[in-house]
Amino acid sequence: MGFNRKDLLGIQDLEVAEIEYILELSHSFQEINERSIKKVPTLRGKTIIHLFYEPSTRTRTSFDIAAKRLSADTYSISASTSSIVKGETVLDTLKNLEAMRPDVFVIRHSASGAPHMLANRTTASVINAGDGMHEHPPQALLDMLTILDNKKRLDGLNVLIVGDIFHSRVARSNIWGLTKMGSKVVVCGPATLIPPKIEEMGVQVSNRLEKCIPDADVIMVLRLQKERQQQTLLPSLREYSTWYGINADRLKEAKQDVLIMHPGPMNRGVEISPEVADGPHSVILDQVTNGVAVRMALLFLFAQR
Amino acid sequence: MGFNRKDLLGIQDLEVAEIEYILELSHSFQEINERSIKKVPTLRGKTIIHLFYEPSTRTRTSFDIAAKRLSADTYSISASTSSIVKGETVLDTLKNLEAMRPDVFVIRHSASGAPHMLANRTTASVINAGDGMHEHPPQALLDMLTILDNKKRLDGLNVLIVGDIFHSRVARSNIWGLTKMGSKVVVCGPATLIPPKIEEMGVQVSNRLEKCIPDADVIMVLRLQKERQQQTLLPSLREYSTWYGINADRLKEAKQDVLIMHPGPMNRGVEISPEVADGPHSVILDQVTNGVAVRMALLFLFAQR
Amino acid sequence: MGFNRKDLLGIQDLEVAEIEYILELSHSFQEINERSIKKVPTLRGKTIIHLFYEPSTRTRTSFDIAAKRLSADTYSISASTSSIVKGETVLDTLKNLEAMRPDVFVIRHSASGAPHMLANRTTASVINAGDGMHEHPPQALLDMLTILDNKKRLDGLNVLIVGDIFHSRVARSNIWGLTKMGSKVVVCGPATLIPPKIEEMGVQVSNRLEKCIPDADVIMVLRLQKERQQQTLLPSLREYSTWYGINADRLKEAKQDVLIMHPGPMNRGVEISPEVADGPHSVILDQVTNGVAVRMALLFLFAQR
Repeated sequence: MGFNRKDLLGIQDLEVAEIEYILELSHSFQEINERSIKKVPTLRGKTIIHLFYEPSTRTRTSFDIAAKRLSADTYSISASTSSIVKGETVLDTLKNLEAMRPDVFVIRHSASGAPHMLANRTTASVINAGDGMHEHPPQALLDMLTILDNKKRLDGLNVLIVGDIFHSRVARSNIWGLTKMGSKVVVCGPATLIPPKIEEMGVQVSNRLEKCIPDADVIMVLRLQKERQQQTLLPSLREYSTWYGINADRLKEAKQDVLIMHPGPMNRGVEISPEVADGPHSVILDQVTNGVAVRMALLFLFAQR
Repeated sequence: MGFNRKDLLGIQDLEVAEIEYILELSHSFQEINERSIKKVPTLRGKTIIHLFYEPSTRTRTSFDIAAKRLSADTYSISASTSSIVKGETVLDTLKNLEAMRPDVFVIRHSASGAPHMLANRTTASVINAGDGMHEHPPQALLDMLTILDNKKRLDGLNVLIVGDIFHSRVARSNIWGLTKMGSKVVVCGPATLIPPKIEEMGVQVSNRLEKCIPDADVIMVLRLQKERQQQTLLPSLREYSTWYGINADRLKEAKQDVLIMHPGPMNRGVEISPEVADGPHSVILDQVTNGVAVRMALLFLFAQR
Repeated sequence: MGFNRKDLLGIQDLEVAEIEYILELSHSFQEINERSIKKVPTLRGKTIIHLFYEPSTRTRTSFDIAAKRLSADTYSISASTSSIVKGETVLDTLKNLEAMRPDVFVIRHSASGAPHMLANRTTASVINAGDGMHEHPPQALLDMLTILDNKKRLDGLNVLIVGDIFHSRVARSNIWGLTKMGSKVVVCGPATLIPPKIEEMGVQVSNRLEKCIPDADVIMVLRLQKERQQQTLLPSLREYSTWYGINADRLKEAKQDVLIMHPGPMNRGVEISPEVADGPHSVILDQVTNGVAVRMALLFLFAQR
């Protein structure tokens, strides 16, 4: 199949065949990152602009590495250093940068839907690298790639997502993607952190972690934003950890080949214990490695248009 | 002709033939930015250092893109991250960086004349990217390129510059350049924001915008620094906007083919209304596009020396 | 000889032959920095990550220039912009970045020993670019290269290091290196700024600068951290300057061919007077130039592994 989109705004929009296409392409890029000379001339002369209105080292560095290994040139604009400080609108910033003829914008913004609004106003491609509580498509794609590498399929798997579902764009993008690909998704967390009507996305809901663990082929542990406690959405961190933290004890009830995933950065000792994070089931660092390959695939698809 | 300068410190210093030479060279670089593969090997192995003592996204990104499209390597030193914090003098910072053998320094500094002082102390080329209230040569060159593209001449045009002339290095560089090239320049703004004796630069002065508009072939709208209000140089923003803001109503009295320019970032609704900024007369985004071409020309001239 | 280390953690660990090897290699890179086209393809496709937990313009820019002149790709992670802010451990940050398959980490950290701990946990190479009060190996290597260039030998030289020895990793790395290479090292400063038992490193100690100067072939002036005064380790800056500042008057007693060195950034008028900093004995800017060559040699050795 071809891939004819201008933008990657969300997993919700994608067809199954498109997801499969991106994952296959990502597979072909994984190998480049294991070479001694990790560079191909594919995107030479292409201009990628990272427009990050929320701070991020991990995501930006990963995109940057992906771009440079394809020989593209990258530029980073972050909220703190930009004309935004001087009162310019997001749209004016985008239009100005567009006038410098970039091929792709990689955008992160705290407002859900910001990348969609901007994508409609530029002829350059837009990749959504996280918008508010809405979507985080590259993360879901790298998560699916990691599961596929380990389980050889996505169809028919039981995936358990644990933690603050309400505020998590990672959870939402994964739910869209995994259910499309035929996985059964269960979300589990304190009632205050489960969005109302989440069942309409095709998932099951539980507040009892111990009941969910035995069936899970994959456990995705979400990062707990500690500031949620101040918003009284959370009991103490300790209590959260007791009820929803993933530790070695809990995993005794899990399948022998369960995969443990986390989008990072981790709060060790809160949502995940060190022995699980570093244990034999953990594919957390594989997620990071796959992240570079997925981003190479995305930049390849969108910068080549 | 040749071009034998080590530095570009101001438009005031340039001969007409030199300005023409830069503009012609810029024309030849415009095309590269419209290619699918926007990169040529011209400046491979050249080292460009951006030394920015004032924050700037726009200018620095534009220089960065220009440099990388010519295959140069770029490095950014900004006041906030640099040894300046540790009490080093500007000159010591320059001499240290010079010892790393850069080809070109692109310098922005809040002190008028700082690039001149530094240029005298280094064998590397210095491009003034804005010094205090003095000059901003790349901006004037890209403005002249934009006018030339649209009007096919600079000679005999009526150019109206509106706003805070007093604090504007953009205005000063444009006045030097446009008057040299044969344009007639009128500056218009509140009396508190017009420098005394500005007529000696060869311009006409007015405080009555409505009288200036009908004759203008080009209207350059300057950014209003809102902090001027606190210095009691300004009445309310609203009053400023009423008297000196460029809006659709005002443009009814303008020539049919008047060009509207703004160096950005814009305060929409203050010095310029959204319908003018985005309207048919506006070449504001063309200025940005031309900015990359002009900077490529400048880096080509100075890094090749 | 070959060079078979994974990491460069300190000068203390190095054999004489290894130091000689690095210095010879550095010599061969000096020439590239004087070319018109300062770039070779040696490290094309290699990934260098600067992981800086302490701010530094000079060191980071020098490493960055060194890397790019060898055609490597570089990425900078600094404490202020990174996931550290989100509470991630240093080790998790390292492991995450390692998963993106870098070849070399260049690490600066305020904790002595941090690079060693990290080097043991990654298969990538680690270059220590300064850890607490412990070591700063690239600085000592570039200092030795500069002395060697000027004196044609290290063996049998008298090197005087003046200032705050206690807090100086530059002093420690130079002491290890110079004594290994056969120089005689004297350290001189106020008693509060001389570490106890420093003699065990093989140096002589003095508090009387005027007695040390006549014998010195090389005087290394250390930067005075002004905040030491608040810790009551220092009398007034003026008094410090009177007793331990290097000025033209003092140099009247020095050898005719004495070398004056400083790792920068300088406090002119405190530890060094302007006429000495810019005078005929000063090789301070040569140190900076040699710094690029030494870093090229180090990156070549460690990224090629």
